[in-house]
Order: sequence, then structure tokens, then C-alpha cells
Amino acid sequence: MTTLLSHINSPKDLRKLSKEDLPKVAQELRAFIIDIVATKEGHLGASLGVVELTIALHYVFDTPNDLLVWDVGHQAYGHKILTERKDVFHTNRRRNGISGFPKRDESEYDTFGVGHSSTAISAALGMAIASKLQQDFTKQHIAVVGDASIASGMAFEAMNHAGVTDTNILIILNDNAIGIDPSVGALKLYLTNVKKGTQKQDNIFEALNFEYSGPIDGHDIFAVVAELERLKTVKGPKFLHVITTKGKGLQQAEDNQVTYHAPGKFDKVTGELTPKNTSHLPPKFQDVFGHTIVELAKENEKIVGITPAMPTGSSLKFMMDEIPERAFDVGIAEQHAVTLAAGMATQGLIPFCNVYSTFLQRAYDQVIHDVALQNLPVIFCLDRAGLVGQDGATHHGVFDLAYLRCVPNLIIFAPLHEVALRNIMYTAQLGLKHPIAIRYPRGRGVLLDWKQPFEHIQIGKGICIQEGTEIAVLTIGAIGNTIINILQENSFSTKVAQYDMQFVKPLDETLLHQIFEKFETIVTVEDGVITGGFGSAIAEFASQYTYTNRLHIKGIPDRFIEHGTVEELHEECGISENAMKAFLISLLA
Amino acid sequence: MTTLLSHINSPKDLRKLSKEDLPKVAQELRAFIIDIVATKEGHLGASLGVVELTIALHYVFDTPNDLLVWDVGHQAYGHKILTERKDVFHTNRRRNGISGFPKRDESEYDTFGVGHSSTAISAALGMAIASKLQQDFTKQHIAVVGDASIASGMAFEAMNHAGVTDTNILIILNDNAIGIDPSVGALKLYLTNVKKGTQKQDNIFEALNFEYSGPIDGHDIFAVVAELERLKTVKGPKFLHVITTKGKGLQQAEDNQVTYHAPGKFDKVTGELTPKNTSHLPPKFQDVFGHTIVELAKENEKIVGITPAMPTGSSLKFMMDEIPERAFDVGIAEQHAVTLAAGMATQGLIPFCNVYSTFLQRAYDQVIHDVALQNLPVIFCLDRAGLVGQDGATHHGVFDLAYLRCVPNLIIFAPLHEVALRNIMYTAQLGLKHPIAIRYPRGRGVLLDWKQPFEHIQIGKGICIQEGTEIAVLTIGAIGNTIINILQENSFSTKVAQYDMQFVKPLDETLLHQIFEKFETIVTVEDGVITGGFGSAIAEFASQYTYTNRLHIKGIPDRFIEHGTVEELHEECGISENAMKAFLISLLA
Repeated sequence: MTTLLSHINSPKDLRKLSKEDLPKVAQELRAFIIDIVATKEGHLGASLGVVELTIALHYVFDTPNDLLVWDVGHQAYGHKILTERKDVFHTNRRRNGISGFPKRDESEYDTFGVGHSSTAISAALGMAIASKLQQDFTKQHIAVVGDASIASGMAFEAMNHAGVTDTNILIILNDNAIGIDPSVGALKLYLTNVKKGTQKQDNIFEALNFEYSGPIDGHDIFAVVAELERLKTVKGPKFLHVITTKGKGLQQAEDNQVTYHAPGKFDKVTGELTPKNTSHLPPKFQDVFGHTIVELAKENEKIVGITPAMPTGSSLKFMMDEIPERAFDVGIAEQHAVTLAAGMATQGLIPFCNVYSTFLQRAYDQVIHDVALQNLPVIFCLDRAGLVGQDGATHHGVFDLAYLRCVPNLIIFAPLHEVALRNIMYTAQLGLKHPIAIRYPRGRGVLLDWKQPFEHIQIGKGICIQEGTEIAVLTIGAIGNTIINILQENSFSTKVAQYDMQFVKPLDETLLHQIFEKFETIVTVEDGVITGGFGSAIAEFASQYTYTNRLHIKGIPDRFIEHGTVEELHEECGISENAMKAFLISLLA
Repeated sequence: MTTLLSHINSPKDLRKLSKEDLPKVAQELRAFIIDIVATKEGHLGASLGVVELTIALHYVFDTPNDLLVWDVGHQAYGHKILTERKDVFHTNRRRNGISGFPKRDESEYDTFGVGHSSTAISAALGMAIASKLQQDFTKQHIAVVGDASIASGMAFEAMNHAGVTDTNILIILNDNAIGIDPSVGALKLYLTNVKKGTQKQDNIFEALNFEYSGPIDGHDIFAVVAELERLKTVKGPKFLHVITTKGKGLQQAEDNQVTYHAPGKFDKVTGELTPKNTSHLPPKFQDVFGHTIVELAKENEKIVGITPAMPTGSSLKFMMDEIPERAFDVGIAEQHAVTLAAGMATQGLIPFCNVYSTFLQRAYDQVIHDVALQNLPVIFCLDRAGLVGQDGATHHGVFDLAYLRCVPNLIIFAPLHEVALRNIMYTAQLGLKHPIAIRYPRGRGVLLDWKQPFEHIQIGKGICIQEGTEIAVLTIGAIGNTIINILQENSFSTKVAQYDMQFVKPLDETLLHQIFEKFETIVTVEDGVITGGFGSAIAEFASQYTYTNRLHIKGIPDRFIEHGTVEELHEECGISENAMKAFLISLLA
């Protein structure tokens, strides 16, 4: 069957069509996305919600000359398909395939790489100012931002600046009342009132000096095209409010928007999820966190939980369901989340602040200035630490050990397995004199029988996993299981000792002195950057005590790592089971 | 003369007075602040502007039971004086004296340590939620936030959350239309229109679900007291808009608000600044930056300058005056500043993004995700790197080398002196394939004859300052002058070689191999944290190439350093001239 879409390779082809053809293109594009994501997996709901908007933008504007920035980029599948990547779209999120997010290296239509939220307005404004300085007054600069994302502080900062410029910037608010989880906060309430027509007078965006229009129905493609054509002729900062439905066009995705944000495999006709039998597998670290905080909070009423917009991903949702008054989703507001936790801690509460490792980069100053400097016992649970896989370079949580290690007062722990995660959470809520960061990876642990009675963990204490005669391997966190597996299965294992150091800070110096005195060759292994990380801490220890042992630091090299499966990426970085085994053998040779 | 103030040791004493006495207290408190700051130096204008508000708050509310959080804290001198610190106020900002900012260790009235802006609402909300959970429904939680500070993203995130809670939080906007420099942005324009009565309908704060009142005259103490008494009885999130004049009560400070933010010594009657003859001194690094960017930008029209609210402090003001269309003060919006620069760089502009080292912590994710990951050639000028002196722990720029070193693609340079700063700025704008961070300290350099013709600096190249026979000292940045001074003046100097490494990243590995092969003992010196910093990079180098030299890493130890003069703090950290001299002698012994 010949479709319109089959003739569209780039927006130029799209623009040859008559307006009346566009609904059919929308239908086909939606089907194309569903078809591929149903089997290849990826983010679904966000892209389905902006099919009409995507087509309208490329139809009305002269992309890539006009500059289009997608915020976060979960919603950019339609954009990728229409901009010369239809034929490679099935490689989405695979190693050496296209990225799940817009990416400058990939296409001239991807004007700005995204992945973390709320950057688009700043980027588009930078482009708009550049055009103005370069005397190009025709170029349009468009940022498409979701309602969850626009509530983040950075987006406000950008609007505060854009509103007083005379640049050709158009902010399109893609308002579907949901990010990955439902949106929260006063701005969401405000937007809901606007939609219902119950917001009487106050217009935040007009107050910020934008020419505001909307709200319009984002699935009425003629209305969207007409409004974009009008806005194209308006000078200065503009704001268009578009109402869409996340998951539009696939009933199940519309009905279960959280699940269908990134549903895994599903039936493209019924939307039914492909069942997975996971009962024989160890649990996800996320779920261990979620169950454990509920368990602890039931006993300790001082415990509160905080997540910046990741209740489902982090499994803090379990606590929000069971103890809603003490579990807070503050929206995409990492900075606020951390200082809120600090404020709570001053009054004797015990805040578990759960932030993805990569997103804690957004609240680095708050960790230093509001928590660590005041030595407030906030408990950071850093989810998705290490290489995360298909989300790629924007989402790997690989810098945390390096950027946290230099912060005074902070304890840094990485659990080897689920029981260690539970026990450190238990230990932390008993009361520490310092803040603590607990970092654990995305996905499953290694223990089926993980729900053990709680045990106290001594702060700053490492563990000898196995004795050995020639080499000491020092591991931190769940990557230690890679070494355990190697040593369980290989004949050279009696020569290799393994230590699970548990704490990057404070280091177990007693244990380290024993190790440095016993072993000439020491290897460190971490699922984080080599530069400044755990191995670097061991190198500093060696320098401090003037040890001259041979030290080999294994971890992630000093470059950004792209997307792929975690296994592929570990292999690429030389910290997979294969790679580490070969390395140990080479040392023993 | 007996004053009312002489009988006020704490807010309890204040509350014994009748309302009619309060204007006299205000007069005396203002005189007290002026008296001491005139000779002891410190921040002046902000505290003068909130004298009435400060008195009214402590008069109406039951501090410290009611919880009062000052944002940033420049304005908290009156608060300190009224809360048991009148007698030690003359020790303000001195080593072992009181801090220039509210600080939890110092007083129970200082509910939250501040210094960086826009944290107060998050902190107060955390406290308010804690009170609610602990069934204390009488406590008030008050955040006093300036208009420059409330425009920062983090404050918006906190309001977005607070607006949908039913907590007893009161946000007081202290609107004086200026931070350290005049406020900017759409929100400032909006507030100006509110004050003028020309903002017709839109109320941003009501739209965010706050009970809004004001604007009221913040110097009419009866009006402020009356409104606070009313608000005390109102439940839920409240927002009071107070109009004040920065520097109120000292004419010169009102007329020259930027200068009198922190004026140095002045005549307490006339306000006249104590003249300083600085013509015989080397220039400030800040002014070298300011003059140099103007010089370069006149030749290269692609150059733009960006500062988040520090035009005067950074001296980007020079460019704003001379080439206003290419110099941008974006307000207290570090996150936006960095991504704006990234957006500009995508279009071929050459952005110099000048951020204080300590404030770049606010934009860490943007450096990683928007600049480095996309390898955009943004030029970061990190002002006030290293120990900054009297501003203390919140403001020391000591983590930058550690937190930036782990970021791939980034070049990190620290100039030894003014000419090196100029030359690296010149080199960077010629076009690099990577982003670069240039970090330099607060205050003066070492060269009178600093305005030399530009010379190109080879990226990743260190310099041998002097040869030596026994020890190699590797320095980075301006702290290298400490070692130069030592080696110029001491007889042991022939035994000590000195290398100015210039680049923390990429390291000059060729030079390092020579050094590690020649010298058994190597010392690194940096004005930054030891953990993860420059010395740590050298330790990693040694580990990578299996060198077993003795390595001594000198820098700032792993704890927060308080306020004092830079010299005192360097002494405390063992990197002063005295301390380093003694250390080198001990190594040579």
C-alpha cells in the first residue's frame, strides 16, 4: 500500500502536500511510531501526543533553517521520522543506532541535544539572540516544552530573560498535564484552570511579557497550522498554549499514560503489553528501595520521602500510595527537592531524597551549600547510577562518585546487592551525624531472597569477599558482582582477593593499609568515571601514605558513552565480565 | 546616652517595647549598623533597606519558635544585632568572628545557613511541612526573599510547590529592584508595573495560589507591623510584597546602591568612601578579564559576554558599557546562563560565560549536559576561584577543579598571572574544538605591566618556571606565585624545581613523564580541594603509568573552611608561603 508517509523523507516533501492531506499524514505517522515501538521498544506516549504538532511545525516553518528545539526529547520520534530518519528509526536506542533523543551529531534538524528537561527555552533564546546579532531577522526559534518541564526553575529563568528581549522566539507549551508521572504544583493547577476557563484574570505568561495565545486543541491539525502561520508573522517573544493528550491514538496508552510512557513491547493493535514472567528474577533495586522505605516509614514516623517527578521510576510511588502524607513528588525541581529536604532535616525529620544520579547534577550546589555545609542528615538515594543503557549519554549516572567525593561531611555508599541497600537505608534512618548518598544502578539485583531482617552497617567499613594471594580487586557497588562471578568460575581465582569497599567516603583506611601491605598489585573497579572517582580516591590514599604499589583503575574512560545495552557499554568500557577476566589474566601472566 | 537598642539583647526585649517606640529602634539600629560597617567593612545597603522589616518581624513573630529564613543573608545584619549578637557584631566576617551570613551554628535564630541565593522558600517550606507533620499548627515559617533572588529558578520551583500545600508559609518579597546590581528580567518589569499601578490584572503570585497582599511601604514600620499581625492569623501559603530602598537612611548609599552594597570603609556621617590609592598595585584579575573581553570583542564580533547577575563583581560591566548589545546580565540564573551560552555557540557565536566558581555549582548539569556533551566551545571564566576570604564557606570557589575534572571534552586552565589570563582568553576566542573553563582568584594579580600584546597558548602545555635538583613542585594557577616567592628568597631553592602546569585538563603528559623520571619526590599545590582536584589528577597519572614516585598533594583539606582573610585561610590549609616553605624544608631535611 502506498502511503503519503512513504514519500516523505524530509520536511521539504511534507511541505509539498496540501493542508488537506495532513490528517492522513498524522494517521500514518502515528501508525508508524506504534508499529516500530511495539516491537523495538522505546518512549511511546509523548510522541503520540504531538503527532499533529510535529507535522504542523515542519509544515509551517522552514526547518532546519528555522530552529526547532524539543525539550527533553521523549516526544521527538515523529520529528525524527519526518527528518530523514524514517529508514533507521527501527535502530532507535540501540548501540550504533539512532539516539532516543534529539542529538546534534545525528541530524541538522536536531538543533540542540536534549534528554534532561527544561533546557529548550534557554537554548532557543541563545539561538534567537545569535540570529539577531547576525542580522538575520527572518529566522524563527521555537522551543516545544511540556507542562511538567516548564514548571522547572530553569525554564522560568529562561522565560524571565526571553520576555524582555525582542527576539523571534516562540515557546510552545505542550500541555498534557503529565510528564512521566502526572504533573504537580501550582502552575499545573493554574494551567488546569486556564483549560477549564475558571482562571479568571491572571495570565502568568502575559505577566512575563509574552504575546500569549491559546489554549488550542493540539490534535486539530488545521487549528494548529493556522495558529502557527499567524504566529510566524508576529515579532518578539510569543507563547502558544497547546492542549494535547499523551498517548493519543492508542486507547490503552491514553488510558494508562504512566505505563505507556515507555511500555516495552506491546501488541500494536490492542495495545496489550507483552507479558513478562519475572517472578524467577531478583527484584529491581528500585522496588527494593520502594518496599524498604515503606517498611521503615511504618516504624519511624520521622521518615519522609521526596522525589522530583520520578515516583514511578524510583518506586517512591509505593510510599505515596501507602503513606501519602509523608511522600512528596515535587515535580521536575531537583534544586528545590534537595533544599526542601534540608529544611525538613533542620526540624528533625529524616528525609530520603530519591534523585536519579544524572539528575542530582541539577542540584549539586544544593547538596554542597544547603545539606553538606550544614551537615544535615539528609539521605540521598541516587537511583540509576552507573551506565543506564538505552537512554544513553544524557542519562548515564557516571559522574556522581567524582562530583560527590569532594564534598566534605558527605558519606558515600554503594550497595553490592539488595540486602546491602536495605541495610544502609535502615542504618541511615537510625540517625547519622552526616548526610549520606546511596548510589545504586538501574534494574535488577542478584538476590532472590532479598527481604532479610535489617542489620546495621558500620559506617566506613569495607568487606573482604574473598581472600587471595597475588592481586587485590577493590570494588564498589553492584559492579562487584561482575568480579564475584569471575572469581566463582575461574581456576585462577585463588590468586585474586576481592574487597567490597562499600564506602567511597569515608574510606576504610584500616582495611586499605592491610591491602596495600599485603598486595603489590591492586585493581579498583567502578561503574563510574575513572577521573576523580573511587579509584582516584584509592590513588590519593596511596599518595597520602606514600605507598608505591601498582594501582590499576578500571571504570568509565574520559569520554561520553553513547546508548546501548548495559552489557554492551560495560564491554566497551572494559568493565564487563569478559573484559575484566581478560585483564586479570593478563595481570597474572 | 542611653538608647533603646542598648537594652535590646534579644527579640524578647524588643517585644517589651510599645509599638510607638519602634521607629526610634529603627533609627538606632540603622545608626549601629552604619557605625560598625563604616570601620569594619561588610555588606551595607541590603541591611539598611530592611531595618524596619527586621524589627517588625521579630516584634510580631515569636522567633526563634517561629522560623525565619533570610534569603542570601546580605540583609541580615539587623537580624544578627537584634538576636544576641550586638556585642560581637564588630567581629563580623573576621576569622573566629561571626559570619557575614546567617549560620545555624551561630544562633538558634539563624534557622538556615545561607549565602547563595533563592534557597529560603524551599528551606522554609521544608520546615513548614515538618511542623504540619509534627502536629504543630501554630508555628509560622517565613522566608524573606529579594526581588533579584525570587527571579531565580529555584525560588520558582519552591513557590510552585508551596502554592499547593496548606502549610503556614509566608513569603515576604523584599522588593528594592536591585540585587548586588540592578535587577533584570520580565519579572522585574512585572514588579515595576505592580508598583506603578500599571499592571492591570495579572497577578503571578495569586496565579500560583498564594494569598497575596501588598505592595506596602517597607519603611512604614506601623504599616509593616499591622500587615504582619494580620497575616499571622491567615492560614495557608501567603505572599507579602514589601517595597524598600536599598541603603535606606544613608543618602550616598541610596544614591549609589551598587557601590554601597559592600562599600569598604566610609565616613559614617557623610557616607564618603575612604580613599584608597591603588595605582601602585597590580590590577584585579576581574578587571583584567573586563578590559580584555572588551579589547577582544572589538576585534571579534562573534564574542558575547554573559553574567548571571554579577556585572560589577566580574567586571563584565566594562563590556556592558562599551558593547551593550553583546553583553548580557541574565539575572540570578546560572542554569539559564550556561545553556543560553550553549545555544549561542550552536550558531557560531563565541560566548564568554563568566560565573563565580562557587555559583557554577548551580549550573553543573548544564555544563555537562548542554555544553560538554555537545562539545560546544563555550568559554567559562570562573571568577573567585579558590579561597575567597571574608565571605567564608558558602563562597569559597574550591570545588571547581574536582567537579569539572571528571567532565569529558572540557579544557581546564588556571592562569598564574594576569598575562596568562589575557593570553588564554585570546587563545580561546581564536577557536577551540572544546569548551574551556578558566579559573582565577578574587583580587589582585602580581604584574604591574600586565597589558602585554596577546600571545597564543598551546593547549595542554605546562611551563617550567625554574629547574631544580631534588624536588619538583607542580602548581596550578595563581597559587604558583607563592612558590615563586619562596624560591626567589631562599637558599634551598636550587634543589627545588617549579612547574606551572597551566592546564588541569588535558594534562601535559610529556612534561609529566620528564618530571616523574627526573624527580623522586613530587609536590602538587593548588588553591582547591585535595579530594579529586589537581593533585588527584597527578596521582591518577602516576597510577596510569605505574610510576612509584613519592607524591605529596597540598591543597584544601576535606572540610569546609570558614571566613577570614585569604592569607589566614591559606595558612590554616598549609598552603601559605610560611607553611609551604616549612614543608619544603622538611622534605629536604
